[in-house]
Amino acid sequence: MKNLSAKEIELLAGTFLFRDIHPGEIKKLIKTVPVYIKTFEKNSIIAFPGDTYDNLYILLQGTCAAEITDYEEKTLLVETLSQGDMIASGILFAEENCLPVQLTARTHTEMLVIPKNSILALCKNHEKILSNYFQDMGNKINFLAGKIRFHQFNTIKQKTAVYFIDLYNRQKSLRPRIPYTIEKLSELFGSARPALSRILAELVETGILGREGRSYIIKDLDRLKSLQ
Amino acid sequence: MKNLSAKEIELLAGTFLFRDIHPGEIKKLIKTVPVYIKTFEKNSIIAFPGDTYDNLYILLQGTCAAEITDYEEKTLLVETLSQGDMIASGILFAEENCLPVQLTARTHTEMLVIPKNSILALCKNHEKILSNYFQDMGNKINFLAGKIRFHQFNTIKQKTAVYFIDLYNRQKSLRPRIPYTIEKLSELFGSARPALSRILAELVETGILGREGRSYIIKDLDRLKSLQ
Repeated sequence: MKNLSAKEIELLAGTFLFRDIHPGEIKKLIKTVPVYIKTFEKNSIIAFPGDTYDNLYILLQGTCAAEITDYEEKTLLVETLSQGDMIASGILFAEENCLPVQLTARTHTEMLVIPKNSILALCKNHEKILSNYFQDMGNKINFLAGKIRFHQFNTIKQKTAVYFIDLYNRQKSLRPRIPYTIEKLSELFGSARPALSRILAELVETGILGREGRSYIIKDLDRLKSLQ
Repeated sequence: MKNLSAKEIELLAGTFLFRDIHPGEIKKLIKTVPVYIKTFEKNSIIAFPGDTYDNLYILLQGTCAAEITDYEEKTLLVETLSQGDMIASGILFAEENCLPVQLTARTHTEMLVIPKNSILALCKNHEKILSNYFQDMGNKINFLAGKIRFHQFNTIKQKTAVYFIDLYNRQKSLRPRIPYTIEKLSELFGSARPALSRILAELVETGILGREGRSYIIKDLDRLKSLQ
């Protein structure tokens, strides 16, 4: 049982798990189950690949990298995690609950640690927490399945074209809502963020896409299709 | 509210969602929420890519294929689904809850259809159902993340070597438990099942792996490492 400060409760209210739940209610809920807080210095290793993962870590402050080391000792970035992210929310409940990645603190990092049984208790007692957790896992499955889909295309331009055509097919709109940030989108494509930004700028310049603030518009669907 | 037959309850007891729950209890639980049954003829299309998915389908009988069609109209098998499988359990709760695949009945198929709200109600009322659903999603996340990992290796032999080394590192045993069937393993590697079987047979013949019934033993870790 842990008494979190008002600031920590405020941070929790910004996490996916407690989305759309009033801070006053979160304060009460969190007192009903065992949780604790851990801090990590910049560049320290939070967890090693192969570690058993049976407490959920939620990033309250800071940025972390989830990385794998391949057999040539090359480090590959799998995901960048930032404030409000639930770390490995899927692995926590998998039969093989070993972390596949190394977690490194990119900055000074503060984690809320919630044991698996506390998560189950919270989910049983609060339908919004239950559906938030389900949604988080569902979004991850969608993202990973998308990543596998984009593996088959060679260039970032092809991937971008296929992505916008997918959005158009699904939303039946030339002004599709893009559910990801550019950073997340470049992780989906397995490409570097600046390279993706360049391709998007090029597609806008050549009149295939248009840009309105943070949104993109499909201006020439035929030419977009010819790129795939 | 649906009265399922004793045979249907027996089939449900074999599904992941109701794992380790007594058939008598399943019978009572399933009466508390709206569910229904749908049947599909061999080769009929159960769902199209892009369809909104807001009822969970559980395969009670038969075999289905989850396939995607690429832009050259080539059909790629994503997953083979069989009795007891929960279909797209992740997508059901994702923000973008559109099916990414086409579902086709490979045989005469019987589906139990459980609306999303019924799932939430069952999870709130029964901790085992809750943890079964979480485990199913967690296992899917693990599998997809593994698939992405194996993309980086070129040959099936490399993938197989890396897989066994991973198992050894994780379980610290030369007689590792393999959580997947050969069929599932070939889906993980993105290879054909017969090709994987040939590689396994070759590794046994050359004395790198050994075989005991359905299990494999690592007999020469150094040579296994040299293959990766």
